[in-house]
Amino acid sequence: MKKFLNTADTFLPDALAGLAAAHPELRVDTDNGTVVRSEGTQDGRVAVVSGGGSGHEPLHAGFVGAGMLDAACPGEIFTSPVPDQMLSAATAVDSGAGVLFVVKNYTGDVLNFEMAADLASDADIEVQTVLVDDDVAVQDSTFTAGRRGTGATLFVEKIAGAAAARGDDLASVAGLGRRVNAASRSFAVALTACTTPSAGRPGFDLPADEIEVGVGIHGEPGRRREKLKPARELVAEVMEIILADHDSLGSGDDTIVLVNGLGGTPLSELYLVYGEVASHLAERGIRIARKLVGNYVTSLDMAGCSITVCRVEEPFLQLWDAPVNTPALRWGA
Amino acid sequence: MKKFLNTADTFLPDALAGLAAAHPELRVDTDNGTVVRSEGTQDGRVAVVSGGGSGHEPLHAGFVGAGMLDAACPGEIFTSPVPDQMLSAATAVDSGAGVLFVVKNYTGDVLNFEMAADLASDADIEVQTVLVDDDVAVQDSTFTAGRRGTGATLFVEKIAGAAAARGDDLASVAGLGRRVNAASRSFAVALTACTTPSAGRPGFDLPADEIEVGVGIHGEPGRRREKLKPARELVAEVMEIILADHDSLGSGDDTIVLVNGLGGTPLSELYLVYGEVASHLAERGIRIARKLVGNYVTSLDMAGCSITVCRVEEPFLQLWDAPVNTPALRWGA
Repeated sequence: MKKFLNTADTFLPDALAGLAAAHPELRVDTDNGTVVRSEGTQDGRVAVVSGGGSGHEPLHAGFVGAGMLDAACPGEIFTSPVPDQMLSAATAVDSGAGVLFVVKNYTGDVLNFEMAADLASDADIEVQTVLVDDDVAVQDSTFTAGRRGTGATLFVEKIAGAAAARGDDLASVAGLGRRVNAASRSFAVALTACTTPSAGRPGFDLPADEIEVGVGIHGEPGRRREKLKPARELVAEVMEIILADHDSLGSGDDTIVLVNGLGGTPLSELYLVYGEVASHLAERGIRIARKLVGNYVTSLDMAGCSITVCRVEEPFLQLWDAPVNTPALRWGA
Repeated sequence: MKKFLNTADTFLPDALAGLAAAHPELRVDTDNGTVVRSEGTQDGRVAVVSGGGSGHEPLHAGFVGAGMLDAACPGEIFTSPVPDQMLSAATAVDSGAGVLFVVKNYTGDVLNFEMAADLASDADIEVQTVLVDDDVAVQDSTFTAGRRGTGATLFVEKIAGAAAARGDDLASVAGLGRRVNAASRSFAVALTACTTPSAGRPGFDLPADEIEVGVGIHGEPGRRREKLKPARELVAEVMEIILADHDSLGSGDDTIVLVNGLGGTPLSELYLVYGEVASHLAERGIRIARKLVGNYVTSLDMAGCSITVCRVEEPFLQLWDAPVNTPALRWGA
């Protein structure tokens, strides 16, 4: 294993210490396992909290800031945070208007966020939850009943975060987050496996000329292994899967598209993939109203990418365009 | 080789087509080999142009936009652009106030930008050049006489770009760019070699437990091979080299720091490295006034990172903070 780290055991706290040093606008509380906006939540505003296993950076801590998340709960690498972390985060950011939990659909996350919601409720903090399950690769997976939650998490966090920032109430913010998830579909391809610091070796074996089609962000198996093929063919295959599932999406529709690197793939390749995605959608008369190309929802050092397509409804674009000021996403601010 | 591409030969045009599709605010002219701001240069404002071999994305095309570059000239992968590209770019963006060329110190780039400056002069376009040579790893290298230009290029492009945007004249913008370069020092470490699409295999062999200390952004050899060591020790070694060369930098000074991934290293590791850099500087009383952590000056899929330290002088911070709106760097806009 070749990684920049001190010891495998201290990888996460050392990385969080670096995040804290780089971003004094975040309060990284290693005792409670939370990353919270230093300036706090404005009175009467809904707070948005997310979290999950670490290893997907910048998700989630990199999206804490004005216009997006109020707090994140980083678990150990590829391991759900515990309910106490989520309760700490909710307690830290609730201003009386309630807290939205954005939860990726992995069994551990779902159970622990449910428990945290109960604990928060006992503490008179109103909680609603948006479950993100956008990955159309497989039904049920290594850590998941149902579909996995991946790239659409960014869309939910940005749009729900903007709704909370403008003062929408908890039911509205939650409803909007659910609509964003329902309107989104993702699919990922791995060129290599990722290596966790604790394992020290790749999480699965992938022959030198094969790719994992439909991989999960923890290296969960996808639909099949196949030979690497030209990007145009591969993207066409992925887009057909996404569009087949996205049956309400058609000519004349607007979309938000994320071409997301899984951590080890350079930007030039992601732009190349984006070009193929754009061509594919253009041929079908589907418009890309907004897009993002880069490493946002990663799987440590995995080479690969995911594509997420969200069908635009009112008022997604307006909230997408609203100012955001976080370590990983920043515009208009 | 596992990369998202159609054919090795079309990698660059396909990636540029993706960039063009994603960013209509850039005009990607594949005939002339230029990437230019669509909205053009405001009359009477100095234009800033850079370029170099591709494979370092987002450098340079990802820095074209308001407050930074007016145009970039992407060469073939790891190959200098030709003088005609630079002349096209200069012609496209000159508004009568002259053009600044920001050139990384590689022999091909230097010669071709010199030739382009002569051609531009013949066409009555005033040109000044800033040569970036911040990499303290080695004196003279595979493609370089003197020191190589690496991470400080981003600092020069941001700060000179902001000076041009506020209306400084050509001599001032160039002088400022040279001061930023003179105040900056960089050093890089590779954990793996990178693979160009045309070669299809890693550019050099690096044993499974060794790293290249002082590597160049094309995989040029550094100072030595050594065993991978804990990040704290490795960063200390790199920082001692940087600080030994940065003899005017001392306690009480402000710096701008870039912890830069070389393309295949995930953000969590870069933050971990940043944390060690911050501790190292804090122990010496050196303050970090601004910082950037991410993949900005890359070497295709190379795993590794570089550290750049710029000693702050007037008016670096004010220009650093000025609004910038490019694909890869965006704030205040």
